[in-house]
Amino acid sequence: MAKRNAFYAQSGGVTAVINASAAGVIETARAHRDRIGRVYAGRNGIIGALTEDLIDTGKESARAIAALRYTPSGAFGSCRYKLKGLEEYRAQYERLIEVFRAHDIGYFFYNGGNDSADTCLKVSQIAEKLGYPLTAVHVPKTVDNDLPITDNCPGFGSVAKYVAVSMREAAFDVQSMAKTSTKVFVLEVMGRHAGWITAAVGMAEDAATPIPLVLLFPEVAFDEAKFLAAVDAKVKRFGYCCVGVSEGLLNAEGQLMAEAGTRDAFGHAQLGGVGPVIAKLVKDKLDYKYHWAVADYLQRAARHIAAKTDVLHAYAVGRAAVELALAGHNAVMPAITRTSDQPYRWKITVAPLAKVANVEKKLPRNFITADGYGITARARAYLAPLIRGEDPPPFKDGLPQYVRLKNVAVPRKLATAFKV
Amino acid sequence: MAKRNAFYAQSGGVTAVINASAAGVIETARAHRDRIGRVYAGRNGIIGALTEDLIDTGKESARAIAALRYTPSGAFGSCRYKLKGLEEYRAQYERLIEVFRAHDIGYFFYNGGNDSADTCLKVSQIAEKLGYPLTAVHVPKTVDNDLPITDNCPGFGSVAKYVAVSMREAAFDVQSMAKTSTKVFVLEVMGRHAGWITAAVGMAEDAATPIPLVLLFPEVAFDEAKFLAAVDAKVKRFGYCCVGVSEGLLNAEGQLMAEAGTRDAFGHAQLGGVGPVIAKLVKDKLDYKYHWAVADYLQRAARHIAAKTDVLHAYAVGRAAVELALAGHNAVMPAITRTSDQPYRWKITVAPLAKVANVEKKLPRNFITADGYGITARARAYLAPLIRGEDPPPFKDGLPQYVRLKNVAVPRKLATAFKV
Repeated sequence: MAKRNAFYAQSGGVTAVINASAAGVIETARAHRDRIGRVYAGRNGIIGALTEDLIDTGKESARAIAALRYTPSGAFGSCRYKLKGLEEYRAQYERLIEVFRAHDIGYFFYNGGNDSADTCLKVSQIAEKLGYPLTAVHVPKTVDNDLPITDNCPGFGSVAKYVAVSMREAAFDVQSMAKTSTKVFVLEVMGRHAGWITAAVGMAEDAATPIPLVLLFPEVAFDEAKFLAAVDAKVKRFGYCCVGVSEGLLNAEGQLMAEAGTRDAFGHAQLGGVGPVIAKLVKDKLDYKYHWAVADYLQRAARHIAAKTDVLHAYAVGRAAVELALAGHNAVMPAITRTSDQPYRWKITVAPLAKVANVEKKLPRNFITADGYGITARARAYLAPLIRGEDPPPFKDGLPQYVRLKNVAVPRKLATAFKV
Repeated sequence: MAKRNAFYAQSGGVTAVINASAAGVIETARAHRDRIGRVYAGRNGIIGALTEDLIDTGKESARAIAALRYTPSGAFGSCRYKLKGLEEYRAQYERLIEVFRAHDIGYFFYNGGNDSADTCLKVSQIAEKLGYPLTAVHVPKTVDNDLPITDNCPGFGSVAKYVAVSMREAAFDVQSMAKTSTKVFVLEVMGRHAGWITAAVGMAEDAATPIPLVLLFPEVAFDEAKFLAAVDAKVKRFGYCCVGVSEGLLNAEGQLMAEAGTRDAFGHAQLGGVGPVIAKLVKDKLDYKYHWAVADYLQRAARHIAAKTDVLHAYAVGRAAVELALAGHNAVMPAITRTSDQPYRWKITVAPLAKVANVEKKLPRNFITADGYGITARARAYLAPLIRGEDPPPFKDGLPQYVRLKNVAVPRKLATAFKV
C-alpha cells in the first residue's frame, strides 16, 4: 500500500487529556513510517483544514510529543465550528477533500465529541462520493461523557476526579467552619445536558469519609421546597451541608435555573451561574451562611490531578485510531469497553460511526437515588475505576511543566482561500 | 518545673496546612511528656475553651496525629469569634482562665491570624493580672499572608501555589479555544484586604511559559477604561487574555466592585462575586467571549496541591511554639525569617505578640508593576520559594485519604455554663 499522510484535529472543548490522545496518534503513526508519511495537525481544529493552515508535527521532537501525555488543553488549538449538513454545506466538505488531496492525506483522525463524530462520518461519506481514498477515524473525547457505545469518554474521568477531590477538600473546610460561620457550600460543575459530572461529585464521600451531600442533577427538575428541606435536614443533623449543582439544572418549567434566577434592573439574567443562585436561595430561605465556587475551566484543565485511568484511556484511543486505520477500518471510533468492574478491566473495541454520530448517552436514572439528590451503588461501581490513579506532570519550581509545541506551518499548496 | 497541661485552638478561616501546625504542636508536646501533661484542643476553636468543650488529643493515635500533616481544614473545628476588648468583655477572659485553671492548663497555643494574635496577647495579660501562671504562644496561620514580622504565613504558600497552577492550566485551555470561542478568562481569588494571593496568580507565567495576564489588585483602584484597553491589547496581540482578580477589588470611590456591579430588580447587589462582574464587562464593552471561575474554598482547602515549603513552615511553627513555651517565652509568636532567596533558606525566630497584634502587613507597592496589572521581579523572588515543592497526601481509589479525628470530649469539671 502506498505511503500517505495523516491529518489530526482537535474539536470542541478541550480536556486535561486530549493531548494524550494526540500523543497516541502521533507516536503510533511515527512507529509506522512505512505506511504513514507525515502527520499534519489542524491549527485550531478543523478550521485549519478548511483554511489550509496545517501544522507539521514532524517538526516536533519525540520528547515534545511525549510531553503531550501530561499537558492539558489542545496543543494545536481547537475550535467550536460545526460542519453542517452535507447537502446544504457541500462546499465545505469539498474544500476539506481539496486540502486533503493537495497534501496527500489518506488518514483523517478527528478528536472530539458528538458533533465531530458526525463530521468525521460525513467526511468519510463525501470522500467516497468524490472517489477520494480516505480512512476516517474518530477519536473520542468529551468531559460530558455522552458518547454512546464507549463505556466512557476520555476527559471525563479527570474532571470526575477533580470535582470529587475538590468537594471532599471543601467539605472538610466547611465542617471546620460550620459552628459559627459557613454551613452550606455550593459547588457548580459542568455538564449542561447530562449529570455525569454532577454524579462524580458524589464520589467525594464514601463509607470511610461520609459527607452530607445534596446533588442537583440536570435530569431532576429543581423542586425548591424539597431541596431546602433536604439541605436543612443535613445541616440540622450534621452541622453543615455540601451541594453539588450542575450548570444545567432546570426548574419545573424546563428553564435553566442559572437564567431563571435574579434579573438585574435591565432585565438581564444575572451574571453568576446557578451556583450563586442556589447559595443565595439557601441564605434567603434558611438563613444559613454560605460559600459557593464555580470551577469552570479549572475542572477540565486540571491536569495536575488527572486520573491515571483517564490518561491511559486517552492515549489508548489515540493509538488504536491509527492501528484501526492501518487495519483498514473506516468511519469508525475506537471505543473503551469495560470487561470487569472489580478488578477494573477494559479493552478497545471498534464502534461504527453511524452508530455514534448524533446519539447522546444519558445518565441512567438508576445512577440517581430515589430522592433525586444522591448517587446509587451502581453509579459508584461505574465511576470508581474512572477516577482511580494519579499521574502528576513533572513540576519545576512548584509549577507543572507543560509543553508548548512549535506548531510549524506546512507550506500551502493551494492558491485558493476559504472563508470560515 | 511542674508538669502542666496544654490547650491548643484553631481560629478563623482554615487552610490546607493548619493541621500540620496542630501536628507540630501535639507531636512536640508528646515528645516532652516530662513537662507537658495532656494536650487539649478547643472544639470549634476558642469557643471550646469558653464553653469548656475540650477535646483530649491524647485519645488520638500517633498515626492519626501524623496524618494531620496532610489533612486540610481544622481537625478540631475553628470559629469566627473575636474576643473583644479586655475591659468591656473582661468576663470572657476571666472565663477562659477559669476553664484553664479547672484543667490545669499552663500552655496556651492559639493558631490563627491577626485577631487571634491579639486575643493570645490579651489572654496572657489577663492571666498575669489574675496571677494565673500561663505561657501563651501564638501559632501563625492565614492565607491572607498579612501577619507582620514573619516572612510569610503558613497557609498562604499553598493557596499561592493553587492559584498559580490553576491559572496556568486554565490559560492553556483558553489559548486552545480562543480562535472561535473563549478569549478572556477571569479567575476570582481570595484576599479581601491585600493582594498577596492576586500576586501569586502572576506566578502562573514565567519566561518558559508566557501567559498574557492582567491582575486586578485590591491595592489598585479599578479603572475601567484602562483595564479594558489592557485586556484588548493582550487579546489583539496574543489571541487571548487571562485576568486574575481579587475578591476585594475596589472602584475609584473605594466601593467593592463585587457590590458596585449590577443590582437586581429589588436593588440587591447581584449574587456573583467580582469575577463575573469583570467578565461581563469584558463582554459588554469588548464583545469577547468569556469564561469565569470563582475558586472560593477550593483554593484554601486544596491540600492535594499544597506547597511543600508551606507544609514544612506550618509544621515548624507548631513545633517551635511548644519549644518556645518550654524555653520560657511568653506572649510570643514563632516567625519565619528568610535568610536567603536563592538558595531559599529560612529559620524560626521569635516575635513578641505586642508587635504582631493588630498590625497588618500590606503587599509592598514595589511588588506591583508600574501599570498596576502585573508583578515585579521582586514579587517573584519573594513568592518563588513559597510555592515550591509538592507534598501530596496518600491516595486510595483515586481520592486523598484525609483523617478525621475521634475528638473525644474531656469530662467537664465546672458546674458553670457560659453562653457565647
